[in-house]
Amino acid sequence: MIGVFDSGIGGLTVFKEIARRFPALDIVYLGDTARVPYGTKSPETVLRYSREAAHFLGRQGIELLVVACNTSSALALDTLQRELPIPAVGVIRPGARRAVAATRNGRIGVIGTPATVKSGAYVRAIHEIAPSMSVVSATCPLFVPLAEEGWTDNSVAREASRIYLEPVARDGIDTLVLGCTHYPILRVVIGAVMGPAVTLVDSAEPVADEIDQHLRTLGRIPDHGQGSRRFFVTDSWERFREVGARFLGHSIERLEQVSIVGE
Amino acid sequence: MIGVFDSGIGGLTVFKEIARRFPALDIVYLGDTARVPYGTKSPETVLRYSREAAHFLGRQGIELLVVACNTSSALALDTLQRELPIPAVGVIRPGARRAVAATRNGRIGVIGTPATVKSGAYVRAIHEIAPSMSVVSATCPLFVPLAEEGWTDNSVAREASRIYLEPVARDGIDTLVLGCTHYPILRVVIGAVMGPAVTLVDSAEPVADEIDQHLRTLGRIPDHGQGSRRFFVTDSWERFREVGARFLGHSIERLEQVSIVGE
Repeated sequence: MIGVFDSGIGGLTVFKEIARRFPALDIVYLGDTARVPYGTKSPETVLRYSREAAHFLGRQGIELLVVACNTSSALALDTLQRELPIPAVGVIRPGARRAVAATRNGRIGVIGTPATVKSGAYVRAIHEIAPSMSVVSATCPLFVPLAEEGWTDNSVAREASRIYLEPVARDGIDTLVLGCTHYPILRVVIGAVMGPAVTLVDSAEPVADEIDQHLRTLGRIPDHGQGSRRFFVTDSWERFREVGARFLGHSIERLEQVSIVGE
Repeated sequence: MIGVFDSGIGGLTVFKEIARRFPALDIVYLGDTARVPYGTKSPETVLRYSREAAHFLGRQGIELLVVACNTSSALALDTLQRELPIPAVGVIRPGARRAVAATRNGRIGVIGTPATVKSGAYVRAIHEIAPSMSVVSATCPLFVPLAEEGWTDNSVAREASRIYLEPVARDGIDTLVLGCTHYPILRVVIGAVMGPAVTLVDSAEPVADEIDQHLRTLGRIPDHGQGSRRFFVTDSWERFREVGARFLGHSIERLEQVSIVGE
């Protein structure tokens, strides 16, 4: 069984790809909806929340943790990898690898929450793979609320994209990392500002590749049957069920509200 | 000493007016910045967070609690008033009274967070004072992130205002309650959509009036000296100090990070 954790509903973009690739795998998802968003909060607070989430999922009996939140991956993954008895996969290194593979001119853009960008985690991850890459970063604080509001392709989303991304587009990059699991939801307006020559990199697929490797090492890829899917949230489940179903394209059946404070 | 509580920095618009009106009063402010925003969360979660905030401020020795958050006032004030040994003032009834006094045609608009609007608290408060009033409500979920981003008068703020408020403006109201302590920060773009014939009602002044009455009853209006000002936040204080100073127009001196979970 694997556990997927995000600050809210954004991680469902990663969950969806994992569920598609590993249909027979049991997956539990935790969205910390009572404390979302993480991306505007401090490193200490994000680490504390991430630990509580990891411990809660650990108690469900998972064998692999997926930190499907860029802010948590940037600020807490290293600590969780040291502290947990099971392997943990984040979304930053897979996204960085995909970006390095995609770029032709060696100029990569990264957009993310203030906390993710400030951490420098993407720049470090890209430079660990390819030190010669030039990396440009920008924060897009309104993209998460826009995605949550369902304003993914209206005049407000287009105008916010223009303001955030025009400086990035002028920087000569040919690859842009969508460094927040909410951002793929805004792909159309982001792509409109960046133009067709810029490749948009989303972490969901490369994360699934990395999970595949881990599961092979663990000898744990179930190949038949239908895996169970369970969802936990820390705030009430009504809104998550509604918005989550829109993200996933199907209804969410097993969904429970839990407290993870002090886990 | 009085305690002022908000989910984050929005309540500083209320704090500022109280501090201006009662310079000799000791005031403590608590912003629950580790869990902001409240306005998109469930009633149970908002009540739990509000209780923890009230208990923390109670332990500081306050004699009067000001719930300077509309969402908390809508969902938790009645419970807090029953449970606490000290009086508690919210922002909704004072705002409702001011709106009823301001309207000439009996048609009042109310804008707020999804949680505040869904609670129906403003409609109830207005109808308790004047049952014949017609009340139109709308939610503006992006206004809080826009205010936090400092995008208070740009093309994105104008476009979001237009989408949220044009239906309200067409409804024939002559008074609009800014039912969230962040919204006065967007007063210019809100006013531009509503037009000069619509009075914008902000709770800060009427809340100060209500505090004045309570303090007179308690016999507690200090009339000389300079009152102390202390600030507590639940996330790290760096960002609060920066954004808060912009709101208040002066620097924030005594500021501490605290944990209120389980209070």
